[in-house]
Amino acid sequence: MNLEKLQAWLGKNNQDIAYISDPITIAYFTGYEMEPHERIFSLVAFKDAEPFVFTPALNVEEAKASEWNGDVFGYLDSENPWEIIADKVKQRTNEFQNWAIEKNNLSVAHYQSLHEQFPNADFNGNVSPFIERIRLYKTPEEIKKLKGAGAEADFAFQIGFNAIKTGVTERSIAGQIDYQLKVQKGVMHESFETIVQAGANAANPHLGPTMNKIKPNELVLFDLGTMHEGYASDSSRTVAYGTPSDKQREIYEIDREAQQAAIDAVKPGITAEELDSVARDIITKAGYGEYFIHRLGHGIGKDVHEFPSIVQGNDLVLEEGMCFSIEPGIYIPGFAGVRIEDCGVVTKDGFDLFTHTDKDLKIIPVNE
Amino acid sequence: MNLEKLQAWLGKNNQDIAYISDPITIAYFTGYEMEPHERIFSLVAFKDAEPFVFTPALNVEEAKASEWNGDVFGYLDSENPWEIIADKVKQRTNEFQNWAIEKNNLSVAHYQSLHEQFPNADFNGNVSPFIERIRLYKTPEEIKKLKGAGAEADFAFQIGFNAIKTGVTERSIAGQIDYQLKVQKGVMHESFETIVQAGANAANPHLGPTMNKIKPNELVLFDLGTMHEGYASDSSRTVAYGTPSDKQREIYEIDREAQQAAIDAVKPGITAEELDSVARDIITKAGYGEYFIHRLGHGIGKDVHEFPSIVQGNDLVLEEGMCFSIEPGIYIPGFAGVRIEDCGVVTKDGFDLFTHTDKDLKIIPVNE
Repeated sequence: MNLEKLQAWLGKNNQDIAYISDPITIAYFTGYEMEPHERIFSLVAFKDAEPFVFTPALNVEEAKASEWNGDVFGYLDSENPWEIIADKVKQRTNEFQNWAIEKNNLSVAHYQSLHEQFPNADFNGNVSPFIERIRLYKTPEEIKKLKGAGAEADFAFQIGFNAIKTGVTERSIAGQIDYQLKVQKGVMHESFETIVQAGANAANPHLGPTMNKIKPNELVLFDLGTMHEGYASDSSRTVAYGTPSDKQREIYEIDREAQQAAIDAVKPGITAEELDSVARDIITKAGYGEYFIHRLGHGIGKDVHEFPSIVQGNDLVLEEGMCFSIEPGIYIPGFAGVRIEDCGVVTKDGFDLFTHTDKDLKIIPVNE
Repeated sequence: MNLEKLQAWLGKNNQDIAYISDPITIAYFTGYEMEPHERIFSLVAFKDAEPFVFTPALNVEEAKASEWNGDVFGYLDSENPWEIIADKVKQRTNEFQNWAIEKNNLSVAHYQSLHEQFPNADFNGNVSPFIERIRLYKTPEEIKKLKGAGAEADFAFQIGFNAIKTGVTERSIAGQIDYQLKVQKGVMHESFETIVQAGANAANPHLGPTMNKIKPNELVLFDLGTMHEGYASDSSRTVAYGTPSDKQREIYEIDREAQQAAIDAVKPGITAEELDSVARDIITKAGYGEYFIHRLGHGIGKDVHEFPSIVQGNDLVLEEGMCFSIEPGIYIPGFAGVRIEDCGVVTKDGFDLFTHTDKDLKIIPVNE
């Protein structure tokens, strides 16, 4: 169990307590998923005592009914959560000298509030790197969920492609995708806001779907994903609405070649930065290097962006079980953007994709 | 301008620099909205130098095209953002001894990375309380946007009420609401995940819309809101599908009375905790106090939950221009939940509501 690994890590690193504050990490260890907004939600794990989950009072019943079998303690909005956490800790153990916190998540204010309850304790321990490391390697059960999420993304593309016609807005197409995901697939939420970008809008990789209306002879970029049993999908496709120009086709084919070359290059032993270079070199040699303005990919799992980061400067050796995206892009301001993205898992000799929507340039006939 | 207030605050508090890391705060000061996920996004403001926005490279063009007229600096995924921020700061000024950070937002890891660039500087300044305070008072322009968001919530309720019928899932109703908001109102995103809960599910205030199918003679609770020009709405209604039982009607009418009494009690000079008590006392006297497990309300503005918190223990005096929710709830495990919620603004003698959907118990005829 993941929680046993955390307890072993505490013992080996002379830490008494881990204070886990990232809701995704809590879900990873406990199976209980919740978004606390500004309220306090944490998992407190001990070197050698029973862990507990701490939630707002209004989530206590839900937490107890979840997969989590350990204790759940709550606090009312009118109570000081830090005092209650401190009491519960002191009831559990006499050893609370060395704390490891999630430095990547815990805010300075929460860190200080917790520290005030234990003014003589040492809070220099950082459990974030350990958590990132164990989350790097996905189990077969996790991969099954990632593939389930990928299948939903493949479904979503078909809805999106079918919704393209002259005069419909990017936002309406995104709305139709989200709706059909909810109604036909029971998707509770997307892993991020569904992106539909036509023409020059696609040159801004993170611009949300606007009220811009689809016109003939534009490229249309989709970037979307779902959450499936707590695991994310994330995939991009770019299609042509009407006949593509030579330049549109050229940047598409270069991006396609770069993406396929990177997929083909994945195997245990290659580093993250080497993989980034496989795709980047192709785009650079074709003269579009300056338009590929982000890393090749990011890890995926319970979070839509996690480790490993497939980026120049990262010499991490990729190993079996690691899951990430391969998503080269070419963004030409004022003209168009192309991105083709699939996530997958490193196998013993390759890369097993989670999404399978065809990547030959799809041409959608003009529909006025 | 808000940014001038921040600069004045720096001067008055002997701070040289404010490092703003909360995307909502950045939008409040700059007009540029963006969700950076794990990448670095900040506003760096100086006591007496020009502020700049710092974003990932792939957002630089978007930031420059936004309302923000100041400098925008970017970093590539392969670069160290903290080194670039430090360089830009040193190009701007020789005074970088005293930093104020957003302690409520900045993670311990980011705080340490920033501090490493300025090892001799003092990072004890906390700008969060100042920001919370200035955001408490809404301008007429902000109130107009909050009312615009409220009108979208009123629209959404009608879609939701019309979608109720036997056998349809909570999630499908939520999906229909979101879709019609996007298509008919151009709503880019909800302010939180649309909640539809039928029967006993409504006793868990934060349970998302499930695949649970609507059955006759249940209460159905809606909690929803939109983002409108950067401002949030948040409203709840509970309706009866088929004839309500005496108990269902009883808890509805008690909650309704509590909500109206609190609305009627708002005026400048009452404290947050006094207002909470107005509603809580009614529910407690009726015998349901133990089932009202959260505060009466929360502030609203650019964030769906901000200050003031309308909660026991908060002796903040409410003043004209403050905006918040009034949302008493009664949650009986295994039976039903009722919540009635409106947001509004304190006026010189009352409370001006942002949502207007009727609150007489709505009975929706059974539709098989």
